[in-house]
Amino acid sequence: MTGLFITFEGPDGAGKTTQVEAFSRTLRQKGYDVLVTREPGGTPISDKIRALLLDPAHTEMAHATEVLLYAASRAQHVQQTVIPALKRGKIVICDRFVDASIAYQGYGLELPLETVVEINRFATAGLVPDRTYLLDIPVSRGRVRLGQRDGLDRIEQKGEHYHTRVRNGFLEIARQQPERVRLIDADRSIDEVHEEIVADFLAWQSANPIRRKGEIG
Amino acid sequence: MTGLFITFEGPDGAGKTTQVEAFSRTLRQKGYDVLVTREPGGTPISDKIRALLLDPAHTEMAHATEVLLYAASRAQHVQQTVIPALKRGKIVICDRFVDASIAYQGYGLELPLETVVEINRFATAGLVPDRTYLLDIPVSRGRVRLGQRDGLDRIEQKGEHYHTRVRNGFLEIARQQPERVRLIDADRSIDEVHEEIVADFLAWQSANPIRRKGEIG
Repeated sequence: MTGLFITFEGPDGAGKTTQVEAFSRTLRQKGYDVLVTREPGGTPISDKIRALLLDPAHTEMAHATEVLLYAASRAQHVQQTVIPALKRGKIVICDRFVDASIAYQGYGLELPLETVVEINRFATAGLVPDRTYLLDIPVSRGRVRLGQRDGLDRIEQKGEHYHTRVRNGFLEIARQQPERVRLIDADRSIDEVHEEIVADFLAWQSANPIRRKGEIG
Repeated sequence: MTGLFITFEGPDGAGKTTQVEAFSRTLRQKGYDVLVTREPGGTPISDKIRALLLDPAHTEMAHATEVLLYAASRAQHVQQTVIPALKRGKIVICDRFVDASIAYQGYGLELPLETVVEINRFATAGLVPDRTYLLDIPVSRGRVRLGQRDGLDRIEQKGEHYHTRVRNGFLEIARQQPERVRLIDADRSIDEVHEEIVADFLAWQSANPIRRKGEIG
């Protein structure tokens, strides 16, 4: 595969979606061939799974069900959208990926991390992002930002202790994988965050001129 | 848990649904407290997953997605329906369970068996049936029976080689776990098959008077 796989991660309210839009716009202006996608979702089947996952009515959803539905959505997305785009040489920018499952389900729901990792390795056929931007924000600040939206989904509605575990999970992932994960302080203006991401990306790309030597052919 | 967990398995067209109905009717006549359920499905969330899985329009579904959706449906069903009923002392009779995933996805789709087993162990929290009736029928005979129905679902539409691997998978499971799985020749009349199942159940129950020493509290 010759493309590049870039993911954006972080707690709810960190501004991921805004930053994904700004980053992809900047890359397109620089002439890159970019595909923007998101999880859960990104294919017709995955979007149906997303609707199941986020429906606020599904308060009875078991933790294992949640893990498996996210992984099912991801498997379809990887096979049908991400891998074909990487094979065509695109830069794929994805709003959430495996790190989100480790943070939200592994750390947030306090499920065995190794099992969550294994299930996701199966779901992704071992695909790992080339670069991940982890937008970090204190839980209370993220909650304030979220509170400005209409209607929170089932995950966003969970309590502060849960979201604190999720944030700590993300920070732990960044600590363990510093070569892949770039930690970004997202408690700043949109422009400041955007400029740091673009600067990092350009520096990283010039230091990594060989596009991709993936575990997948 | 004090209940009993009985599953019916076998290739499409083997007559499982008819036998589940007849068996549950007979047990109720004998005074047992019976819950009949099925997979995929058995809860509102699981039924929505079932609809995704069996929709003939979803020809693009990735194999990993299929495994994970069956497991997600199962996780919800086990937590919300099966375990609570077992705790109340019921006999739970389930049309398909983990063996179906091993046969259809592991053997049928030729995915790594150990991974399918691991994912399902997570989905079921280790719950294993007390007794399984495996209704066996030659593939060609099952296909003839299915052909009498209107509209086959996405799985039923797959070809004969696939269904032969599925049948062989079921037979291999029965060979490996003879203490749990009772192989039943289903290429006979409904009454003959029913009588063999009831006779086996009564003999098995009198030989296993302690209801359940499960791996789950």
